[in-house]
Amino acid sequence: MEYVYSDRVKNLGGNAIREIFKLLQDPEVISFAGGFPTKSTLPTKLISEITEKLMSSSEAQDILQYGETEGYRPLRYTAIDYVKRYGIENIDIDNTLIISGGQQGIDLTFKSFVNKGDVVLMEDPTYLASLHILKTYEGVPIGVKSGDDGLDINDLEEKIKKYNPKVLYIVPTFSNPTGRTYSIENRKAIAKLTAKYNVIVLEDDPYSELRFSGERVPSIKSFDEVGNVIYITSFSKTLAPGLRTGIAIGAKEVIRKMTIGKQATDVHTCLLSQAIINYFLNNYSINERLEDLKKVYLEKKTAMIDAIKKYMPKEFNYTNPDGGLFIFGEFDSSLNIDTFKIFPELVKKYKVAYVSGHSFFASEDKFNTLRLNYSNATLEQIDDGICKMGKFFKEILANQNK
Amino acid sequence: MEYVYSDRVKNLGGNAIREIFKLLQDPEVISFAGGFPTKSTLPTKLISEITEKLMSSSEAQDILQYGETEGYRPLRYTAIDYVKRYGIENIDIDNTLIISGGQQGIDLTFKSFVNKGDVVLMEDPTYLASLHILKTYEGVPIGVKSGDDGLDINDLEEKIKKYNPKVLYIVPTFSNPTGRTYSIENRKAIAKLTAKYNVIVLEDDPYSELRFSGERVPSIKSFDEVGNVIYITSFSKTLAPGLRTGIAIGAKEVIRKMTIGKQATDVHTCLLSQAIINYFLNNYSINERLEDLKKVYLEKKTAMIDAIKKYMPKEFNYTNPDGGLFIFGEFDSSLNIDTFKIFPELVKKYKVAYVSGHSFFASEDKFNTLRLNYSNATLEQIDDGICKMGKFFKEILANQNK
Repeated sequence: MEYVYSDRVKNLGGNAIREIFKLLQDPEVISFAGGFPTKSTLPTKLISEITEKLMSSSEAQDILQYGETEGYRPLRYTAIDYVKRYGIENIDIDNTLIISGGQQGIDLTFKSFVNKGDVVLMEDPTYLASLHILKTYEGVPIGVKSGDDGLDINDLEEKIKKYNPKVLYIVPTFSNPTGRTYSIENRKAIAKLTAKYNVIVLEDDPYSELRFSGERVPSIKSFDEVGNVIYITSFSKTLAPGLRTGIAIGAKEVIRKMTIGKQATDVHTCLLSQAIINYFLNNYSINERLEDLKKVYLEKKTAMIDAIKKYMPKEFNYTNPDGGLFIFGEFDSSLNIDTFKIFPELVKKYKVAYVSGHSFFASEDKFNTLRLNYSNATLEQIDDGICKMGKFFKEILANQNK
Repeated sequence: MEYVYSDRVKNLGGNAIREIFKLLQDPEVISFAGGFPTKSTLPTKLISEITEKLMSSSEAQDILQYGETEGYRPLRYTAIDYVKRYGIENIDIDNTLIISGGQQGIDLTFKSFVNKGDVVLMEDPTYLASLHILKTYEGVPIGVKSGDDGLDINDLEEKIKKYNPKVLYIVPTFSNPTGRTYSIENRKAIAKLTAKYNVIVLEDDPYSELRFSGERVPSIKSFDEVGNVIYITSFSKTLAPGLRTGIAIGAKEVIRKMTIGKQATDVHTCLLSQAIINYFLNNYSINERLEDLKKVYLEKKTAMIDAIKKYMPKEFNYTNPDGGLFIFGEFDSSLNIDTFKIFPELVKKYKVAYVSGHSFFASEDKFNTLRLNYSNATLEQIDDGICKMGKFFKEILANQNK
């Protein structure tokens, strides 16, 4: 049978990272691809303990029953309090929606606002899944320039005027892939400008709890005066990605539309996951857990930075973030290194993997970049893997100079 | 701020049933709306026991980590064996996709095949969420006539020729809302005809395990010779809806497209749910559980049929299904009863709820129909609620005759 697919998917390949995962079934491969939390930090005893308590409580059967699309009510109430840590105040339960992982928040936002051909602005480079999701709505991604401080506000205004975008999608804290964090001034300017032009801001914030150094910065949502910012966070990086649970905060009317969109897909997020997270937030100290996590992550990041200094060619420039999961690297553009083209050779020859940086760009195609994740490898693997990568790139550069 | 929503959601209200749930927060209301499993059958001890075992196993941390979009591999292997009970043979793991409840299977199918303006054929009446989901893809539902034996094959062929539909969506076993089951001959004819005309069949089968009487009928998928049938089932009715887990079976190429669509929404289904279900299927007897469930459901259905006979006006015609969760009722069309219009009055006056049947129709608007669920009320509530409903409708009929 010849299948006639919809326009939205007919030319759509898999999300680059999800596809890499499948290449990496070989357990010998050291993977700096992906954004997996450190496996050893995943709280098996905690989940078992909490589940036992939930399943022997008086509401056990309600947790196994169908629930409301908006989410498990106790968790929605808990969320109101939880997001105060991001500076988000003065909301009630109707401003909250429990989502099946942060990524579903992106999907529901685009579903609610993006028609075929509509422009979504994104930092360039950006989280590649957002580009993939946007394709399923036949939207058009346009990159906005950025620097160490955050988005280039002049470029943002110019592009808003030029493209009349529906949404601005950003990861302003420990951005994926760059690890960059926008300054407070930049956040205020983004909130003000997008309000002026009626642009929805989708503030994706999965990483801000993983800060090893520097000061916390309030969310852009906390500067939202007109209700144009949708804030999403997730428990994938702080508790367990396998539970697929996150929170979206937005104007009531917007949350309502997103809820109707969610009714049309998974009805509601796994109630057991929601109840586990709610119990955890109310009966344990998330801050204690975060302290433990951050020690592990800082140690790994430091190991990777040290290894890069030691092994990588000097033409490799890289970020050194205060938190999150990623280092973003870039070779001098004069060198003509295509990290996408040579990736299979690296995996085959040295059994090491990264994600080629070009997958993260909305408008540009920077093939001289790559993203390294440090959370999913051991300290030994980090040293070993970066050593091999260094050898590999030095060989390539040596061949170029012949 | 004035929000400019996408065309797909701007005029979209909530799914009728999901909205009714919110009306029914009042614990005094006896609800025959919804399709909730009987709460007392939800296996809290089992879930606790299994979770403890999983979380102390060697793969505990993998279950809390990110997983593959296609699903938890052990469950996909188990699924190959599991669907043999529906007559589905000769498949391998690439024919399987684990979904976040059966409803996500509908979403991913429409996402993969339906462009704006494309026709999807459906039995009239049909599962109302499929109509809701189709709206989010701006597809056009067209009803196909049906009788006790299943779809009207002549009408199906005529409509295929006339509308060139992308998909035929059906619930052929204990159909929601009618409770009807298509005969083997009808299933074979549907498989043959849709193969001839290259129409994708989406066979939604959440209820077939809940059969109290009569013979099992093989799935339409089991008669699929060209790979045009997508089969979906779910553990919502057999284990626990709160876990949001189901299985889709289809041609490899189609499953691949659906997987790419799923990458763009929830990444993967809750891994804890998937692992619980896999453990259950491999270490417990689902058939034993089903025997227990069916006793409960048959008792409730019998109680509702008895109550209808006893209390409802004789002008009320109704189905008496061999399984599933629903009875579908219809008043003589001469009576001019609008079940949608009078619903709020019934809830207010007698605190009883049904779902007005018109919500289930793709093409017709039969306001003289209603759907009754018997699984979510106690035997006492069934008697009491139908008694009140009977009183209510008799009052209405008496007023009409004045």
